[in-house]
Amino acid sequence: MTRTLTLTKHHGLGNDFLILLDVENRTPLTGELARALCDRHRGIGADGMIRTTTQEGELTFELRNADGSTAEMSGNGLRCLAQAALDAGLIKAATPTTIHTPAGPRHVTATPAEAPRTAWVSVDMGVPEVHGEADQYNVGRCNVGHGNLRVNLGNPHLVVLGPDPATIPVEELGPALEVTQPGGQNVEFVALGPGPDEITMRVWERGVGETLACGTGACAAAVAAHHWGRSGRKVTVHQPGGDAAVELKPDGHVFLSGPSQRIATCTVELPL
Amino acid sequence: MTRTLTLTKHHGLGNDFLILLDVENRTPLTGELARALCDRHRGIGADGMIRTTTQEGELTFELRNADGSTAEMSGNGLRCLAQAALDAGLIKAATPTTIHTPAGPRHVTATPAEAPRTAWVSVDMGVPEVHGEADQYNVGRCNVGHGNLRVNLGNPHLVVLGPDPATIPVEELGPALEVTQPGGQNVEFVALGPGPDEITMRVWERGVGETLACGTGACAAAVAAHHWGRSGRKVTVHQPGGDAAVELKPDGHVFLSGPSQRIATCTVELPL
Repeated sequence: MTRTLTLTKHHGLGNDFLILLDVENRTPLTGELARALCDRHRGIGADGMIRTTTQEGELTFELRNADGSTAEMSGNGLRCLAQAALDAGLIKAATPTTIHTPAGPRHVTATPAEAPRTAWVSVDMGVPEVHGEADQYNVGRCNVGHGNLRVNLGNPHLVVLGPDPATIPVEELGPALEVTQPGGQNVEFVALGPGPDEITMRVWERGVGETLACGTGACAAAVAAHHWGRSGRKVTVHQPGGDAAVELKPDGHVFLSGPSQRIATCTVELPL
Repeated sequence: MTRTLTLTKHHGLGNDFLILLDVENRTPLTGELARALCDRHRGIGADGMIRTTTQEGELTFELRNADGSTAEMSGNGLRCLAQAALDAGLIKAATPTTIHTPAGPRHVTATPAEAPRTAWVSVDMGVPEVHGEADQYNVGRCNVGHGNLRVNLGNPHLVVLGPDPATIPVEELGPALEVTQPGGQNVEFVALGPGPDEITMRVWERGVGETLACGTGACAAAVAAHHWGRSGRKVTVHQPGGDAAVELKPDGHVFLSGPSQRIATCTVELPL
């Protein structure tokens, strides 16, 4: 016997997620389910799977990476979830709404955009914690170290300043730097520019590998650039998947804005 | 304005396809559509997209690779299409049915299997053309040359016999050998064994890259092994995605058998 499960696939800057709106709280998001559905050849395929349910009338955010591991937060994932919730009428357009994540409550504002199947979503990512430089030993394998900063946005990041990320062997340095903190961390390889208040970035995501874009990573990069005195408060972060807009508010909150695009509605059969 | 299009995603040994049953002949399979839907981050994601329609009461097979290019045939793709047609009631279970491909008519037999969402499909792949060895110059860059054979199964193949394919730099040799024939070719890196009448193979598919399995490639490999006098008429071809069974009939026809698994039913919105 089987039952059907309906999900929607979305991407934010090429960072793709399967979204399960489970307001009836029927389908636990197990590692096995996420691995099966995120498998790019034997499943639908995605960087991660997100489940939302309701808690006292407000939406929750639960994320598993493609390898089945849990993650506290994902800016692009939260944008995709906001679009799915907007499409389903669970949240109102252009209205700040609270979504509860393992990293704490986040406030999202989703607005339908002109591009087809697209919403523009801003997320208040909260107040980042700046943990200072990683020690020299830990980043010693990384020869691009013009500077580095550990930043926490609900999930841990190491931002490494260097030359054009296109020249960086991310497949090699990413996994090496990922494990230099207990529990692992995401690693952003960033260069300043090309214009003022612009950053160019490639990202290695813990539990995933290199992705086309990372929302919390873009925020961490902007926080680091501002911390180093190399950018203002409104920063455009260029990533292989597209551009994210990051704004550092005077009260310390970081806002991430960018598109989410709906790709497909998918129905799968699960064993009962 | 948009309209919706419903597809199913299937895989045969990890070789995944989006299947469009378009019996009303409404949706041309353009390169643009295939590229958009096969994109693994901004689309649903697949190795290729297959469209079927009817011609005088019989099904047709039209395939585009993930890069939008056309392909004459795919054994795994044909198996996936047969399962989709069986699910939709377009063909009868356990009954040989003709499907018209650009490489000529193919006879498929699909039977529901015990595994969930799975059909076992045999395909009469027709009579292969054996074109002999590629010249030394053309395979000179490939240092694994214990022997090679050019075989056509509706699409062109170069089978290269060597040591354990796990030791072969397929990402490097595949594209180099792909282009040594006008129009390109698929390249199979094969070793004999581990048992008698067994082959171990990795495949580089023209227009796709390395894939987990290739149906016509498995047939070409079995034809070559038999041609070299190194195997009998019933051959198991081990591939990273799983095993295919190939039988070389005395009348020259090659039968490919293996599973197809239904992954999901997906609905996308297209501009009108």
